[in-house]
Amino acid sequence: ASYNLLLLPGDGIGPEVMAGVETVLAALKETGIASFETETDLVGGSAIDVHGKPLADETLARAKSADAILLGAVGGPKWNGVAYDIRPEAGLLRLRKDLGLFANLRPAICYPALADASALKRELVEGLDIMIVRELTGGVYFGEPKEITVLPDGSKRAVDTQVYTTGEIERIAHVAFDLARKRSGRVASAEKNNVMKSGVLWKEVVTQVHAQHYTDVELEHVLADNCAMQLVRRPKQFDVLVTDNLFGDVLSDVAAMLTGSLGMLPSASLGAAEAGGLRKALYEPVHGSAPDIAGADKANPIAMIGSLAMCLRYSFGLGEAADLVERAITDTLAAGTRTADIATDGATAVGTKAMAEAIAAA
Amino acid sequence: ASYNLLLLPGDGIGPEVMAGVETVLAALKETGIASFETETDLVGGSAIDVHGKPLADETLARAKSADAILLGAVGGPKWNGVAYDIRPEAGLLRLRKDLGLFANLRPAICYPALADASALKRELVEGLDIMIVRELTGGVYFGEPKEITVLPDGSKRAVDTQVYTTGEIERIAHVAFDLARKRSGRVASAEKNNVMKSGVLWKEVVTQVHAQHYTDVELEHVLADNCAMQLVRRPKQFDVLVTDNLFGDVLSDVAAMLTGSLGMLPSASLGAAEAGGLRKALYEPVHGSAPDIAGADKANPIAMIGSLAMCLRYSFGLGEAADLVERAITDTLAAGTRTADIATDGATAVGTKAMAEAIAAA
Ligand SMILES: CC(C)[C@H](C(=O)O)[C@@H](O)C(=O)O
Ligand SMILES: CC(C)[C@H](C(=O)O)[C@@H](O)C(=O)O
Repeated sequence: ASYNLLLLPGDGIGPEVMAGVETVLAALKETGIASFETETDLVGGSAIDVHGKPLADETLARAKSADAILLGAVGGPKWNGVAYDIRPEAGLLRLRKDLGLFANLRPAICYPALADASALKRELVEGLDIMIVRELTGGVYFGEPKEITVLPDGSKRAVDTQVYTTGEIERIAHVAFDLARKRSGRVASAEKNNVMKSGVLWKEVVTQVHAQHYTDVELEHVLADNCAMQLVRRPKQFDVLVTDNLFGDVLSDVAAMLTGSLGMLPSASLGAAEAGGLRKALYEPVHGSAPDIAGADKANPIAMIGSLAMCLRYSFGLGEAADLVERAITDTLAAGTRTADIATDGATAVGTKAMAEAIAAA
Repeated sequence: ASYNLLLLPGDGIGPEVMAGVETVLAALKETGIASFETETDLVGGSAIDVHGKPLADETLARAKSADAILLGAVGGPKWNGVAYDIRPEAGLLRLRKDLGLFANLRPAICYPALADASALKRELVEGLDIMIVRELTGGVYFGEPKEITVLPDGSKRAVDTQVYTTGEIERIAHVAFDLARKRSGRVASAEKNNVMKSGVLWKEVVTQVHAQHYTDVELEHVLADNCAMQLVRRPKQFDVLVTDNLFGDVLSDVAAMLTGSLGMLPSASLGAAEAGGLRKALYEPVHGSAPDIAGADKANPIAMIGSLAMCLRYSFGLGEAADLVERAITDTLAAGTRTADIATDGATAVGTKAMAEAIAAA
């Protein structure tokens, strides 16, 4: 059976880094390692330009029937004036929500060759390997009411609503504990139970899931503000870190930045396992659309190519092919090939294309 | 006229660091620099132990009539089992809300003598001086509904509500822009307008206040997740950073940790300027109650004593006395006196009391 990949390059540097994925896919095909059917479609600002909205119905339908989705990045100043409901990000959020991609896995790995690129002292980040498990279809991102109302005196009132149910917390907790079992066996769960009722429920449910199913895993609860501090102070204390949608957004960005390798970090957004089929899944870099360097052949394609590796592993069980792609990345870096974002000191940087070709060759 | 200070030591290391303030107050009195009436009362867990709730009505009444409040810290594992509405933090939150302390100023300053204590490379934090202006009486901390309901099937649903009005955003924006005028003239405003309606309104109102009153100040809008990243990557790009209650909680903790001086950072929580009177104000360290080292004479009293300096400056216009206290802190550090949290390498550490006495002597 041939699997079908939907490629959604999106905006800014999205198309360039996605071209890198196509280069690697071609190499995998040529060498007989793995072969996929691919389709390409629009999302975000580029979809707004064509369809007047960031996710056309046909694109959503394609996404639902694809075996996996690879997405570049969405957004950019060009679409700043667009109405809230049809802004570029709305396309990505709708994909996450409508496909039920509740589990966002964001590894924060410090590549040895790049430890010096971190803002932190080398010894604090060398060997860093955190897996952030972010809840992705609930919380303040999707809760209702979410609205701005005009008051009688002409001033405005904005409301966002954070909602979490037992079931939503249970399923993300399972993902975190299952991952921890395959890693170092430690989970930290971050919330603000001292201020938020959703934090109270979060802590309660994670504690229950742990007690009922995962007493072999070590569980620690940490307040989200303290967690952000600890990530800076002593990041290696964390292994798997599970948290809600909004804290996950901020904490995973902090963790990513610590590694000094923001342009290198992939992510997977997974739906529930489906009986007799593949679970829905979308893979995208942690970095954004970087409009300032778009089109300049300067972007680092490694996060996007690493997202392809996660796709091979999590969607298709092609662990060996994934290892191969990841090793090609490591070898290319070890050989000194660098894009501008990770080129240290005297090193000359190569462009997006050359980097992707070097990885494909490796 | 003699001013009246309410001292609320609170829990954990709170009483020890507050004793440091009393030592310094005694020195200010003796030398004739400044003299205050003080009263001491309970808040947080220590109030729960006595009154069954974290803020007794008499304490709130005293707080309302005091000219300024100094608070140590609240909370600790001892009170983990306490009901949500009477947990230690509820006392602090009620003080903030009932006194209308909407503007929380959190300086993140990297003391030159301590730049090596930062997790970040010295050159990234040396000279760091950020003022975080956090909205403190709105947002998800206080919005209603805030509740957990039990669903028919026995599972639960938790809701928190983030609310912001034009007026709430306007007044905190004014505080930020006014401060920027006295500093480097730059404000960054952080929100998530790509996901939250309160972020949309936040950006809109800050933009308006800027255009109408502060075109001499430079304004930049930054997404909160990117802001967290940028704080780690290149913290010195920020001067005044204004943000909402929840993002402020997390971002100010990140900023504090960057300085390597968490035990040294004070904060001020201010109410509206009052016609013919002092504005309501509460001063507290950024650090928490650190139950693990409570009672061990190990805590660093500098954040608490620095909070007294902020109190002298912001509540009583005693800028010179404030400078004096701050200089005493700097001189004591320069002389090599260190508590354990900031003692580098071979240096022997002094206790909480000895540090406070050294500062008072200076
Ligand atoms: C683009 C934006 C909507 C998105 C989010 O907030 O989730 C991004 O920051 C991310 O982390 O994937
Ligand atoms: C103790 C807690 C309620 C408080 C907060 O979340 O505001 C603390 O973290 C702070 O930053 O002052």
